[in-house]
Amino acid sequence: RNFTVRGGTRQTDLDGQTQVGRFSGGEYMNAGPARIAQWMVTLDYCRELGIPIEVFTNTNASALIYHEGMGAPVRYRTAKADVYGYVSELLAKATDQGALDSSLTGDDKQRLLAFLEGWGDIGAQHRYTGSKRRGYSVDPGAFDQAGTPLPGPPSLSDVLASGVGRHFSFEFEYEQAMLMFQPVGGMDRIPAALVRAIGPGRVRTGCAVTGITNGDNGVSVTYTRGGREQRIDADYCIAAMPPHIAARIPHNLGADVRHALTTFDVHPVGKMGLEYRSRWWETDHRIYGGITETDLDLDHVWYPSHGYHGRRGTLIGYYNTDAHAVAYGQLTPAQREARAVAQGVRIHGDKYRTELASSFSVAWHRTPHIEGGWALPTTDNIPAYVLLNQPQGRVYFAGDWLTFLVTWQAGAFDSARRVVTELHSRVLKS
Amino acid sequence: RNFTVRGGTRQTDLDGQTQVGRFSGGEYMNAGPARIAQWMVTLDYCRELGIPIEVFTNTNASALIYHEGMGAPVRYRTAKADVYGYVSELLAKATDQGALDSSLTGDDKQRLLAFLEGWGDIGAQHRYTGSKRRGYSVDPGAFDQAGTPLPGPPSLSDVLASGVGRHFSFEFEYEQAMLMFQPVGGMDRIPAALVRAIGPGRVRTGCAVTGITNGDNGVSVTYTRGGREQRIDADYCIAAMPPHIAARIPHNLGADVRHALTTFDVHPVGKMGLEYRSRWWETDHRIYGGITETDLDLDHVWYPSHGYHGRRGTLIGYYNTDAHAVAYGQLTPAQREARAVAQGVRIHGDKYRTELASSFSVAWHRTPHIEGGWALPTTDNIPAYVLLNQPQGRVYFAGDWLTFLVTWQAGAFDSARRVVTELHSRVLKS
Repeated sequence: RNFTVRGGTRQTDLDGQTQVGRFSGGEYMNAGPARIAQWMVTLDYCRELGIPIEVFTNTNASALIYHEGMGAPVRYRTAKADVYGYVSELLAKATDQGALDSSLTGDDKQRLLAFLEGWGDIGAQHRYTGSKRRGYSVDPGAFDQAGTPLPGPPSLSDVLASGVGRHFSFEFEYEQAMLMFQPVGGMDRIPAALVRAIGPGRVRTGCAVTGITNGDNGVSVTYTRGGREQRIDADYCIAAMPPHIAARIPHNLGADVRHALTTFDVHPVGKMGLEYRSRWWETDHRIYGGITETDLDLDHVWYPSHGYHGRRGTLIGYYNTDAHAVAYGQLTPAQREARAVAQGVRIHGDKYRTELASSFSVAWHRTPHIEGGWALPTTDNIPAYVLLNQPQGRVYFAGDWLTFLVTWQAGAFDSARRVVTELHSRVLKS
Repeated sequence: RNFTVRGGTRQTDLDGQTQVGRFSGGEYMNAGPARIAQWMVTLDYCRELGIPIEVFTNTNASALIYHEGMGAPVRYRTAKADVYGYVSELLAKATDQGALDSSLTGDDKQRLLAFLEGWGDIGAQHRYTGSKRRGYSVDPGAFDQAGTPLPGPPSLSDVLASGVGRHFSFEFEYEQAMLMFQPVGGMDRIPAALVRAIGPGRVRTGCAVTGITNGDNGVSVTYTRGGREQRIDADYCIAAMPPHIAARIPHNLGADVRHALTTFDVHPVGKMGLEYRSRWWETDHRIYGGITETDLDLDHVWYPSHGYHGRRGTLIGYYNTDAHAVAYGQLTPAQREARAVAQGVRIHGDKYRTELASSFSVAWHRTPHIEGGWALPTTDNIPAYVLLNQPQGRVYFAGDWLTFLVTWQAGAFDSARRVVTELHSRVLKS
């Protein structure tokens, strides 16, 4: 669900806990979708609807990696220099020794070694002994300030044992590779613009569907709104709710549909916004956006991709899934904040606590009418996936869960486009 | 030189060629410094002076690599998947064969292989056979649209022979690693804000210095402005011009200074802005910013880091140095445009020509009062570097060429800060 939390946003979860956003003007968190890849159709809607976009900082060489047992976090740039340096040294050694002669021609070897020397910064000696790429405790500057390199590098064994390298492939993913984008002002600028384009009179929100009846000449949908039972009759219905929610709604689409809706793999997901009174991550840590990776159960910390150098700023204090999301989700909002801040202090120091202004958290699996972060097709439910991708009488289903882009807003768009295109053809033919 | 070219910008080069910028409103090119690393003091000035910043897109997985002999350019994401895939396969093979047992403990081996499996996407078989990371000709979407993978991967030998990997380490450099930033609206927002902060009445531009005379009680500087010879007398002088320009100006600072100023390694640099009537790189190629690397003598093509989805946009059509900059610089502006466009068409197709609105080019080595892109200290001129970093009587020199941040605006700031701090101490003590 595209959901941007601002000051005044009110939400009551399935446990009866109500939160009201206390974010300052201009501050927000995208609690649902937050990033858009360049190739996704979502950007076409931004262009067509005139929604300004800006870079979403999905990767940052200055962001941190923090694992239990580390004395201090390490920056991505440092971790990459060490891992790529040692990988280069090892592969150069094997190549030099002739261990790969059955796989490499003489030309291959020469080209591979030339690549490794530059890419791993191992020089003609084929030894990794550190690199300017690791960074400095005092930056290079004027006259005799050549820069004070960070201590290190650690040994090959220590670098491998640290496990930092496991975070490097995230940025290669087709969906996640930079450059990524976000709408200026919050992800909900997209539904707001869509509603404007469609005409606000044509959109009714706040309706909890209670029944779907498919007929020969139309569909009846009953729903409650403001406590009152209502009904709408239409030629067709596109049900864009999550499958596990749709599964509970009385309908006359048959047992196969009823069962199919229950076969998706629904994941708990949690996210917390932390508004700070200062942008200490910029001034003190020189981190302007990006994501810090951890093996704590907060999983990820996001630094904001907008409002650089502003007076305040809002981090994502945790963004986690499955067991980690359940662990956080079963706490009260105040307990979640305390836990996230205690973990963040270990990585960032005391300002993570002392500069905090307010927080807002969403446990998607404990949120009414959605009850999960996303619903994945599985290798076992292909028949269900196929069935629900076909019209059931005059009822269509749509959502990212019916695409190869599950978890992505673009999946919801692609599914909707497919359904309305099919419906359009059907109506033209009828 | 911090120089933003807009519509109306006029410049006459040393060959007597005058260009007038014809860029549309909002369009510009940063012909001099264009990118700022997170750690650089330049960002502190942006913060203090209230200059909004935005991400400079120094790296983009969707940008291209094009080498002579390639049938078509390859995207960074594809090139990286292939190189990292094969590197992983080779290193896993050597590790599995025991070729690295003298360098790796059993734990090391296990950890290294786990890393390579994920990082190179080679799976438990330790074979690279392509990856979703390479990208698609038809993107994943709704229902049965799993995505049509790009053809490939090429063989290990072909990937090594293509040389694409040589571009990967740029983004690891301490000065170049993303995230990078730029002022909103053009790099010249920085000098404009500095002038406002200092007071416009205190800054005199358009003055060509003709002589510097150091005395016991002050410094006299003569200069021409609007054709008239003028003189200014002051307690001290900070000469912030490039060394090879300062070397030609009559002064009484002695033969050592005169010689020292000639010992820096001055590099030709060229840059061209190409304004287009449409943002075809976004709509047709799904490239939103970033840099395409080539082995053509245009060197680099930059896509704009602002104005996404706008009506028009301005690429950097070439940004080259040394022999490549000389080759372009000796052409007329019209010839440069024709050459850059012909090269760009090979990479991007016909719109590179048909959508072009106008261009503006700078050959820094043919530009009055600077005559080069940057001036580097060398291993041979350390005494000169040290000498010019010390006050010569009441005359100080300042500039990026006197720092460990040559070519960077931040170097000029750092040098200036060092000099004014020293001068401040000296005056307080005197």
